[in-house]
Amino acid sequence: MTKTCKFCQIISGDPPAPLVLDDESCVAFLDHRPLFPGHCLLVPRTHYETLMDLPGALTGPFFSYAKILCRAVEESMAAEGTFVAINNKISQSVPHLHVHVVPRKKGDGLRGFFWPRQRYADQAEMYEVAERIRAAVALFRPEPG
Amino acid sequence: MTKTCKFCQIISGDPPAPLVLDDESCVAFLDHRPLFPGHCLLVPRTHYETLMDLPGALTGPFFSYAKILCRAVEESMAAEGTFVAINNKISQSVPHLHVHVVPRKKGDGLRGFFWPRQRYADQAEMYEVAERIRAAVALFRPEPG
Repeated sequence: MTKTCKFCQIISGDPPAPLVLDDESCVAFLDHRPLFPGHCLLVPRTHYETLMDLPGALTGPFFSYAKILCRAVEESMAAEGTFVAINNKISQSVPHLHVHVVPRKKGDGLRGFFWPRQRYADQAEMYEVAERIRAAVALFRPEPG
Repeated sequence: MTKTCKFCQIISGDPPAPLVLDDESCVAFLDHRPLFPGHCLLVPRTHYETLMDLPGALTGPFFSYAKILCRAVEESMAAEGTFVAINNKISQSVPHLHVHVVPRKKGDGLRGFFWPRQRYADQAEMYEVAERIRAAVALFRPEPG
């Protein structure tokens, strides 16, 4: 736990927060500025900054809880689907890994991505980008931990 | 594999797509309409519609690949962070689970959530919503499979 981290404070119980899930390895609570009511944040109890920092042994259990939370949010909020998102470093308001789980309904006014989507200039450019990423993937696997 | 699923077709190699990761259990390729160049989609080889449908045994390996992809996209695209997102059912363009991994940079013009965020009317309303979700979480755990 880091003393100045807002989410570590919530996990420690001070300040109290509207918890929805409380387990050995992770905790989930309501985002106080929801996209829609029922918008939850799932966080590991241990302070890891980003998804990339989450140890291998916790990855399965953590995302199993994300799945449970999707089911629970859908069921309890009469939603028709969910939006699950993680901001790593950029646009990450609190530097403690958190998965947003947001209830969605048809006609709720949001689009999946409301950002202008781009196009690659041509196939050659697209394959050149793929090759760069592919080379980096080779560099990072197998994953440590 | 389902014959009409676009992502199952890509996984089968027809049509060919700019792959960035190709493993026993999952595949990743470039989104052809990227938010930014390098925007990837990670999909399980087997056709599961949503995150909730992903079997427990695949959850850890699948998200370990998501982590590798975050590292690789950041490294290869000179990004400073990543945005990771899953649309379940609503706003899900292809009904085959896919994790978006999008490179992010400071000042790239996106905000984490560009949607108007709401407020709960008061603490009582917020805790009432938390209680509903908490009850549903109890219903869905421990997760099957």
